[in-house]
Amino acid sequence: MALNLTILGSSGALPAIGRFPTSQYLEIQNRHFLIDCGEGAQIQLARLQISIHKIDHIFISHLHGDHYLGLMPLLFSMHLHKRTSELHLYSPPGLDEIITLQLKHSKSVLNYKIIFHPFKPTEIQTLFQDDALTVETIPLIHKLDCAGFLFKEKIKPRRINKEKLVEGMKLQQIASLKTGSDIFDDVGNLLYKNGDFTLPPRPSLSYAYCSDTAWNESMIDQIAGIDLLYHEATFMQVDIDKAVETKHSTAAQAAEIAKRAQVKKLIIGHFSARYKDLTLLLDEAKTYFANTELATEGITFTLQD
Amino acid sequence: MALNLTILGSSGALPAIGRFPTSQYLEIQNRHFLIDCGEGAQIQLARLQISIHKIDHIFISHLHGDHYLGLMPLLFSMHLHKRTSELHLYSPPGLDEIITLQLKHSKSVLNYKIIFHPFKPTEIQTLFQDDALTVETIPLIHKLDCAGFLFKEKIKPRRINKEKLVEGMKLQQIASLKTGSDIFDDVGNLLYKNGDFTLPPRPSLSYAYCSDTAWNESMIDQIAGIDLLYHEATFMQVDIDKAVETKHSTAAQAAEIAKRAQVKKLIIGHFSARYKDLTLLLDEAKTYFANTELATEGITFTLQD
Repeated sequence: MALNLTILGSSGALPAIGRFPTSQYLEIQNRHFLIDCGEGAQIQLARLQISIHKIDHIFISHLHGDHYLGLMPLLFSMHLHKRTSELHLYSPPGLDEIITLQLKHSKSVLNYKIIFHPFKPTEIQTLFQDDALTVETIPLIHKLDCAGFLFKEKIKPRRINKEKLVEGMKLQQIASLKTGSDIFDDVGNLLYKNGDFTLPPRPSLSYAYCSDTAWNESMIDQIAGIDLLYHEATFMQVDIDKAVETKHSTAAQAAEIAKRAQVKKLIIGHFSARYKDLTLLLDEAKTYFANTELATEGITFTLQD
Repeated sequence: MALNLTILGSSGALPAIGRFPTSQYLEIQNRHFLIDCGEGAQIQLARLQISIHKIDHIFISHLHGDHYLGLMPLLFSMHLHKRTSELHLYSPPGLDEIITLQLKHSKSVLNYKIIFHPFKPTEIQTLFQDDALTVETIPLIHKLDCAGFLFKEKIKPRRINKEKLVEGMKLQQIASLKTGSDIFDDVGNLLYKNGDFTLPPRPSLSYAYCSDTAWNESMIDQIAGIDLLYHEATFMQVDIDKAVETKHSTAAQAAEIAKRAQVKKLIIGHFSARYKDLTLLLDEAKTYFANTELATEGITFTLQD
């Protein structure tokens, strides 16, 4: 199983020509998540031929317009496309009120149910959990209460070493081996020792999305050692005053966080419209953390486990 | 002076690939209006290099998402671009509440003032009036209360026939001639007879925007003889059942309205995403009203007076 992260938009608050505001589409363990939903997210999904029907969970980091104003158009399109399955929305408080008011004034009753999951962005909180993965919030430092999201696969089953399988093994016994158990017979004698028949599980992948934040050391422990970090880099270091004033980060700061947290790979985004040549931001980040890439719209980052 | 109408979006409720929802930019007598504001209107304005600073009046026909969800992103961009001048918003009731709530949750205080002008879409009402033009509502028939907008230039001054001007005429006398007056001397003798020195005024241009409507004969009197009519044509006649069900019009119906109202030119738009080849809609309309064009995105229609 792979993790696929597609960048739908990577612009800062003011859209630059040819760049959409923040939105990402994450496929992980056959689950499909939308992370933030700036204006035009559905236009980008359509362009990239990503079906909106698969998305059952949408995570909104905070209620600045460039991170959620594409949501209402998407919700209406899901309705017009006859969606009936439940949709889960995770966001700081207020989004339910914003959506409900707009449905009221358009006299719309959606033919699917929205389940709102308001969260407190100042605390680490588990928002989603199933047998394969968890999603928890990452408290960020911004002008408005804001949280990132940490997607973590759970420990996977051990893999059966097919070459070692012996005739007569039952399916139930194989299933037990995958969980790490040894197999005993009815009277308690060891039949199959787990290590003889299995290989270690595939690694559990992890992705952290840190949308809008000032320099924020406090998250380093939480994201230590993860496979992939998206961290905003609105400004270059030369504009650090603007970053401090607006509670955003520079490319250098994003890279420093990646380095200290010893993540495997960094993606930077949320670029200010003032920068026409984004390679300058990339070069700045790479000075501190070599394995950095730009959140270029339309690109998919893939991690193999 | 010319009237310039630029099409920013012409899609129906569901965005089709490469088409944006409804929005138009109208320049008339050096005034700059935005008419409806579907998702991505500001993206289209940027693409077409139209400055958002000039827009002081925005008219929203109704509160279906595809006609106003690009407004909030535009308002935020105006703020980030340091707008300070007042902005007038004309819409059915509710838009003020929608905007105010979203400003509250983003903890934003705009650095310009919005002046809301809620109107009752079921009545003809003058929304805007100055020395050069008027804007009035056109009641439409739709699932939600909805009005179109009629932009009418006022009668222009008579033009001075420069070849006939005589030496010794005063500027004040020329100004009086433009208003249609004859000029008398101090004791009441006719000095200059108006008709000898002036030509008729240039024609007053008029444009009617009819966003979402079912077949609607009641507006024919109001728009009779105008220069330019935009009328929605969501469906083709073969899909008349869908048009009736959703309270939209067919291309044939739009053309029939144009014909009966004896307008000079018709533009059709708000096309359903089901139609890939829009020339089919154009051909259908032209059967009934020859001078029809498609509301193709990025195109500007110009009327010379």
